[in-house]
Amino acid sequence: MHEFQYRHNILYCEDVKVADIAKKVGTPFYLYSHKTLVDHFRKLKDAFREVDPLICFSMKSNSNLSVCKTLVNEGAGLDIVSGGELYKAMKIKADPRKIVYASVGKKKEEIEEAIRQNILLFNVESAPEMKLINSIARQMSKKVDVAIRINPDVKPKTHRHITTGAKETKFGVDFKTAEDIFDNSNLYSNLNIAGLHIHIGSQITESRPYITAIKKVLGFIKNSRINVRVLNIGGGLGIIYSKEKPQTAAEFAGAVLPLLAKTGFRIILEPGRFIAGNSGILVASVVYVKNTPAKKFVIVDAGMNDLIRPSFYEAYHEVQPVARSKYLETDTFDIVGPICESGDFLAKDRVLPKPRGGDILAIMSAGAYGFSMASNYNARPRPCEVMVIDGKFYVVRQREKYEDLIRGEVIPSVLK
Amino acid sequence: MHEFQYRHNILYCEDVKVADIAKKVGTPFYLYSHKTLVDHFRKLKDAFREVDPLICFSMKSNSNLSVCKTLVNEGAGLDIVSGGELYKAMKIKADPRKIVYASVGKKKEEIEEAIRQNILLFNVESAPEMKLINSIARQMSKKVDVAIRINPDVKPKTHRHITTGAKETKFGVDFKTAEDIFDNSNLYSNLNIAGLHIHIGSQITESRPYITAIKKVLGFIKNSRINVRVLNIGGGLGIIYSKEKPQTAAEFAGAVLPLLAKTGFRIILEPGRFIAGNSGILVASVVYVKNTPAKKFVIVDAGMNDLIRPSFYEAYHEVQPVARSKYLETDTFDIVGPICESGDFLAKDRVLPKPRGGDILAIMSAGAYGFSMASNYNARPRPCEVMVIDGKFYVVRQREKYEDLIRGEVIPSVLK
Repeated sequence: MHEFQYRHNILYCEDVKVADIAKKVGTPFYLYSHKTLVDHFRKLKDAFREVDPLICFSMKSNSNLSVCKTLVNEGAGLDIVSGGELYKAMKIKADPRKIVYASVGKKKEEIEEAIRQNILLFNVESAPEMKLINSIARQMSKKVDVAIRINPDVKPKTHRHITTGAKETKFGVDFKTAEDIFDNSNLYSNLNIAGLHIHIGSQITESRPYITAIKKVLGFIKNSRINVRVLNIGGGLGIIYSKEKPQTAAEFAGAVLPLLAKTGFRIILEPGRFIAGNSGILVASVVYVKNTPAKKFVIVDAGMNDLIRPSFYEAYHEVQPVARSKYLETDTFDIVGPICESGDFLAKDRVLPKPRGGDILAIMSAGAYGFSMASNYNARPRPCEVMVIDGKFYVVRQREKYEDLIRGEVIPSVLK
Repeated sequence: MHEFQYRHNILYCEDVKVADIAKKVGTPFYLYSHKTLVDHFRKLKDAFREVDPLICFSMKSNSNLSVCKTLVNEGAGLDIVSGGELYKAMKIKADPRKIVYASVGKKKEEIEEAIRQNILLFNVESAPEMKLINSIARQMSKKVDVAIRINPDVKPKTHRHITTGAKETKFGVDFKTAEDIFDNSNLYSNLNIAGLHIHIGSQITESRPYITAIKKVLGFIKNSRINVRVLNIGGGLGIIYSKEKPQTAAEFAGAVLPLLAKTGFRIILEPGRFIAGNSGILVASVVYVKNTPAKKFVIVDAGMNDLIRPSFYEAYHEVQPVARSKYLETDTFDIVGPICESGDFLAKDRVLPKPRGGDILAIMSAGAYGFSMASNYNARPRPCEVMVIDGKFYVVRQREKYEDLIRGEVIPSVLK
């Protein structure tokens, strides 16, 4: 459930009319519900209370400072994937002892800074990375906790771009390599192999692949008699975009807790989309309605530079008018952006009340992998981000201006 | 041809070693050759000299100010698709009488500004847009030249995201609608329908679809006895990424000039990729080489946030070491970035001399739709852009800093 609901055919975010915000800040903009973020976090926390897990919000899904701060205030840790996310985490004074850092490509300076900040754990993705972290830790005279990211060779049903636990992907190490690393742990004298990490993908709606992966990892721990105290089961929990019936937090916990509780391991979760996905929408204005012999198009002022998911992941987002009336005729439209390529669409073949220029539409479930993937393609300033908190709305990131498009550009005098 | 060539196994951009630039500015970065940009522009200009066309560089392919300024200095006009590109064009003092403006979603403020700047032509994409431009022009007491963008229903062989001349796309109007617009031109008293525009797609390697489209448009002009003076045949000329054998500028001109020359129309071309594509490369460092039982990965410090084409368009980019040696063993690798999804790759199954951490690789043909589509996904600062001009290199856009990631963010005090 989320806090973007109609009352008398008017779309609200919590107790604030979406149209009122649009009037104030212009379109397009991202809109987040503070209450939904908190609710989703609490649902997961509550479902897993038996093991009192560390729930690290996956910043890559949405690294807006106010979104992250909302969750940190609730006790969330953070799952980071870059020095930039670490920088943002420090900006909101997140507890570094609740930060875990995964990425196949951690660079030296990023590792140094993470050690300096005393983060909880590195999720290590390869033996060369083990070596590098170890040598940096040695130079810094530190002992660093790491978790080995296991690639369990499990293929959940999801988009090929976001399957991360199959053996053909770049992520983690296979069991054999993990065993080698444990056998040679004396090579890594400045590392403490505290645990194991799995993350099999994103937008996974059923518990089966998780159970398979967790069982494989627990079997590995048992058979190889390794000594770990942390098990990070990653993120990837699917949400409702359309007609999916994803597992709820309680169902997911019900499925995996029987495996986890008895282990006594410190459990870490890394949800992103599950918390942020339905906590945000993208709000856009209709610029033109265009009828062609082949199709009808609603052209809006948000494009694939603002929300790339429909085009990039063939993702489905509901599109809803901000003011709904039962008396209007409906028709079938593609909802497309102003960008000059066919890939620039937000939704295809949708039945909508016939919109007119100036009407405002909400693209639902845009809170995760929305703004975080936005670009300036077609020299479009990125939209502002707004959050409703306790009946009021706040611009939590200002709309970019044209001047922002050329920041840092220098024309050599030979060209002038 | 382009100016990124080996000399004694060392990769140069013109007369500058790519490795020397990397040492100075760090990686990843985009690198452009001024000479290649100029050469490509001149080739096209020369091939079409018989009709002395206006060649408008398509800014969406690369709107770096120094890239655009290079071409404007050569006499190029600009093909813009947004108010942001107009802003950039004005920043480099481009001649507005050489600017054409296409986009299915032009907003009121964007149209106003373009009229104020006195641009040459609007490429109009729908009847509602005609109406809007007309009403704005009337309010501003201006008479505005427009070209009707025709959707000729031609399907060139290219990626589905960049086919723009098929009838199922959002672009342009069909012949019937165009005829209606001409028949009702009295409705648009502040517009002058100066010409027709076609743009059938991008990365098109053969002349046939152009010939088909041009013939259709010329037939339409003849049959409907409309009076126009401008024919904009768009862009979309393909380049060599891999083993394509695209038409050269001369071959393309040879194929279409017989159709165009006798018309007496003012001819406009809108090349982007043809000029910029092979004028730029993306330079990245190897962070780790990772062997897994299923695959071998070269993990570099550039990702899909820097160059999204391989993942988004299934695009092929050559990958070449900046220092090549014949004595090294080769192997087959995926070249991937540090971003936490499987879609983050730059090249798959490539035979390369076995690289080591710290080695530098060039991702070729990255001058078009490279930086212009870059994002901050995974909180990664965007790379810097560098241009070699006459034997010297210039940072033409500075690398983003972590501080740039949070620009404009405001955390409401209720969250603190």
